[in-house]
Amino acid sequence: MAEPFHCDCSRHLSMAHLGNCLLNAADFHADSCGFGMRRLNPEGKTWVLSRLAIEVVAMPEEYARFSVETWIESVMKYFTYRNFIVADAEKPSRIYGYARSVWALIDTSTRRPLSIDGVADGGIARSADPSRDCPIARPSRVTPDSEAQTVVSFAPSYGDIDVNGHVNSIKYLEHVLNIFSPDWHVSHPLRRVDIAYGAESHYGDTLSISRHTLPDGSVSVAISKALTGGGAADVCRFLLQFS
Amino acid sequence: MAEPFHCDCSRHLSMAHLGNCLLNAADFHADSCGFGMRRLNPEGKTWVLSRLAIEVVAMPEEYARFSVETWIESVMKYFTYRNFIVADAEKPSRIYGYARSVWALIDTSTRRPLSIDGVADGGIARSADPSRDCPIARPSRVTPDSEAQTVVSFAPSYGDIDVNGHVNSIKYLEHVLNIFSPDWHVSHPLRRVDIAYGAESHYGDTLSISRHTLPDGSVSVAISKALTGGGAADVCRFLLQFS
Repeated sequence: MAEPFHCDCSRHLSMAHLGNCLLNAADFHADSCGFGMRRLNPEGKTWVLSRLAIEVVAMPEEYARFSVETWIESVMKYFTYRNFIVADAEKPSRIYGYARSVWALIDTSTRRPLSIDGVADGGIARSADPSRDCPIARPSRVTPDSEAQTVVSFAPSYGDIDVNGHVNSIKYLEHVLNIFSPDWHVSHPLRRVDIAYGAESHYGDTLSISRHTLPDGSVSVAISKALTGGGAADVCRFLLQFS
Repeated sequence: MAEPFHCDCSRHLSMAHLGNCLLNAADFHADSCGFGMRRLNPEGKTWVLSRLAIEVVAMPEEYARFSVETWIESVMKYFTYRNFIVADAEKPSRIYGYARSVWALIDTSTRRPLSIDGVADGGIARSADPSRDCPIARPSRVTPDSEAQTVVSFAPSYGDIDVNGHVNSIKYLEHVLNIFSPDWHVSHPLRRVDIAYGAESHYGDTLSISRHTLPDGSVSVAISKALTGGGAADVCRFLLQFS
């Protein structure tokens, strides 16, 4: 249910909360197939979200019941492609939107990519269903935008940090949505967001958000972290399309 | 379920998310009794949370299923007292904690208190059950602490704002928890929080958080908003007891 607390000032589910529901659905599905975090974490492996695109025609309204369906489209050596359908739980033919995601598997101590083929004795590849349709464009790499201007800098806080000490993937989206006013969100509902994740960030880092409105009206946003030796590293880049 | 995203870096449900679950339970219960927001808002009335105390012996762990039970203890002319039990959904005799809350009914245009007696044709008073036990102390008024020092100032953002343009009650708690580090939260689990709400705050306000550690180790925290003519108004006061 789109609980009031998970809705924004427009009385619709917030995009950050929808993103969280997608990641939960991915975790529950992977868990039921034998390659979820609960099985892989004790083996020193974890899934890392590399890219995410969410595109909606509408967002669930306050108190509406919605469903999230997910499946693996394909499995490559170092990446797996997972898609989602978000629908009205009471009228499944009413589609709110779709999402596509790209995941890597990494070693939790070295943070280096691991080959995905052997996961769950190859069961992950057998679970893929490339025949199902997901009628939205693949997640963009979101190219760096040299014209972006820094609009805010902040230090991640307790609520941003996950059990591994990293800033949670969805919390970046929350911070990005917060650079727009409530009035903007009410008059310009977000219809598509592409997110490309780069370096991880931690408690104690200083993050900066920069933005640039493109000629077609979409907004390019980047989060970078200051490096101790000077300079900055790309943490994640967003392309936001408002209606 | 204590979803991973609703847990903090200690792999336990965050107190802010538990607070949200309590408010949802209150809304669903009131709705089912005929005096919920969906019925009262169109009449130009709304419930306002005046005080809240949550006290736990433990927090649900990641993936644990928990239940929230709520009932009205009593109804006064201008306030109603609502209590909560948070338990293990699979083993209801295992209690995580209790909560107590005090609510006022206000006119949404004048923001003035309304008499509660007549709500739902007096059904609210008939629904009260003063015989049930809620074995925690009543919410404290949380007296102002003249020794508190300002630790951070911030402007509420899109994600803080509810449909009425006010900062959401639980978002204040999130901001307060964020003044403590992840390490602090892991080593000092929050066992009780008392919150007393005062003036409402809005998008565009500047809020300041001040804190003071008391001799018994509990922490007094206040959020105030700068007034345009100078000075500040009390928005909410917290008393936090960590273990």
